[in-house]
Amino acid sequence: MRALVYGGPGRRSWTEAPDPTVGDPTDALLRIDTVTICGTDLHILGGDVPEVRPGRILGHEAVGTVLEVGSAVTSVRPGDRVLASCISACGRCRYCREARYGQCRSGGGWVLGHLLDGVQAELARIPFADLSLYPLPDEVTNEQAVVLADIMPTSYEVGALNGHVAPGDTVAIVGAGPIGLAAIRTVRLFSPLRIVVVESAAPRRRAAEEFGADVVLAPDNGVRDRIEALTDGLGADVVLEAVGRPATFELCAELVRPGGRLANIGVHGEPATLHLEQLWIKDVAFTTGLVDTYSIPTLLSMVAAGRLDTSGLITHRFALDDIMTAYDVFADPAGSGALKVALNRA
Amino acid sequence: MRALVYGGPGRRSWTEAPDPTVGDPTDALLRIDTVTICGTDLHILGGDVPEVRPGRILGHEAVGTVLEVGSAVTSVRPGDRVLASCISACGRCRYCREARYGQCRSGGGWVLGHLLDGVQAELARIPFADLSLYPLPDEVTNEQAVVLADIMPTSYEVGALNGHVAPGDTVAIVGAGPIGLAAIRTVRLFSPLRIVVVESAAPRRRAAEEFGADVVLAPDNGVRDRIEALTDGLGADVVLEAVGRPATFELCAELVRPGGRLANIGVHGEPATLHLEQLWIKDVAFTTGLVDTYSIPTLLSMVAAGRLDTSGLITHRFALDDIMTAYDVFADPAGSGALKVALNRA
Repeated sequence: MRALVYGGPGRRSWTEAPDPTVGDPTDALLRIDTVTICGTDLHILGGDVPEVRPGRILGHEAVGTVLEVGSAVTSVRPGDRVLASCISACGRCRYCREARYGQCRSGGGWVLGHLLDGVQAELARIPFADLSLYPLPDEVTNEQAVVLADIMPTSYEVGALNGHVAPGDTVAIVGAGPIGLAAIRTVRLFSPLRIVVVESAAPRRRAAEEFGADVVLAPDNGVRDRIEALTDGLGADVVLEAVGRPATFELCAELVRPGGRLANIGVHGEPATLHLEQLWIKDVAFTTGLVDTYSIPTLLSMVAAGRLDTSGLITHRFALDDIMTAYDVFADPAGSGALKVALNRA
Repeated sequence: MRALVYGGPGRRSWTEAPDPTVGDPTDALLRIDTVTICGTDLHILGGDVPEVRPGRILGHEAVGTVLEVGSAVTSVRPGDRVLASCISACGRCRYCREARYGQCRSGGGWVLGHLLDGVQAELARIPFADLSLYPLPDEVTNEQAVVLADIMPTSYEVGALNGHVAPGDTVAIVGAGPIGLAAIRTVRLFSPLRIVVVESAAPRRRAAEEFGADVVLAPDNGVRDRIEALTDGLGADVVLEAVGRPATFELCAELVRPGGRLANIGVHGEPATLHLEQLWIKDVAFTTGLVDTYSIPTLLSMVAAGRLDTSGLITHRFALDDIMTAYDVFADPAGSGALKVALNRA
């Protein structure tokens, strides 16, 4: 088969790779029908995730068709059209029993395209298929489903839920890439008073407006003053970091009100400075988190019912064989205007 | 009257000051019977709390006798023996209505010995007396009560409750000063599996053992390895920072397990480094907080019923006139072995 193989920082190739097979009784073999590229893949290529070794097939967001299952698999069958979660789950370890599948201690967690070969390929082996694959109802398209593999549940679980967004809140989202834009949709489920998006790139600020942000600001535009002016001088109730850089995290910590919450979503490659000399007295809760994707069934049912809109996230479509071009487009959002790119089987 | 007056970083004096009076209708005038010195007072003297201006009377932990009340005060009367909380509360602002009295926006919060004159004096004006003073039952002594002004509720609210200590948890407490030792008692209320205390000073390590810590470690002693060995390689479920220095905060962040909680209690004067490149994926919740003292009635009833032990925290006793010496003793715990010092009216 052909696959997108990581070659070390800055290096990737679309090349021949051995066909995967069902190894463990809990495995499924998947034919990839629709797959996307994640900002995390760019962090990997940037060297921010050093545990990814050269030779690894990338990718952790896909919809496919089950070709074969191991003897222990009972929830999916060959021929099923399924969503592959970015998180695999053994279902048995201490963390899986608490629904913290992202922290699975027994071979699951975020393994696809990270510690195991991923789904940017013609075929993929999916471990723990019973807990990691979701059969799709006919009314949900591949493109609607594929954004539920990672970005929609990440923005929901690690953003809106970790940040305890509540009705009436002022929510600041720093970063309007795909995750930040998805967060506009999932934060909206909790009826905030207003969503303020802070983003440096003009095309993404326009996208944030289209996704329904109430206020959209450039980061150099007196952001803190603007948010304080909206909130009786207090700051935002909830701030979501959706970039993954020290400067944006530190901006988030400036924007949160006393008693507020800062939920980090971004993938970070460097430490940040935490101004405890200001924050110790402010009753602020910070959270970090890898998505668990326990919310996929919920979000899937909402998409199927027309209660959650996933449109607009995928802006560019390519044949799977053109993934090298798709990476170039995805990595240059300022030039291409790309949000998510979808690669479809020919 | 005489009072302990801050003279700028490193400078304090026990000197004549004007007698306070009832100014606002919600004020009470208190005769100070028992007062203590807080680690926060040392932070002030160290220059870590720059909003405290020279000329300020320090102190925010006292038991006294009400001498006079303003016309609006209904909960306490002249002659009452009362605990003065370190937190004053208007009871009307947005934050007070959420029981976040520490963040009071209308003249309360931590004001005593900070933004208003405090209680290390013969007399003190207590604002918002109805919500800031607690009449004491006869069975609770002044010394038992005075540690409920700040350190017991701080260790309980900002430590055990913010950290969501649960039965079976491994709780690491970094720092065994008075707050850390108080935290051993309040964490114990939630039936942790074990409490591990990390402390650099040998006398305080011995105190931690006496207070009931299960494991006591010096910080240079492979702390992370020791805690991982106790916890199946995971780290502590909850870590409490009870020092207020970058190095101890950063140690705490190393000790917490994936999915764990780090509750900062310490008063910080400098920023710390937050290793987001390791933490982003670990599902860690960090909290900061100023105590609200909403728990004083609960803790007071537990002390009165013999269900919460406050003994051992006060190690040295002085006449109020000897407060300059008491400061010296308190500021040199390695030499004096002091935990809390009590100053009593002659």
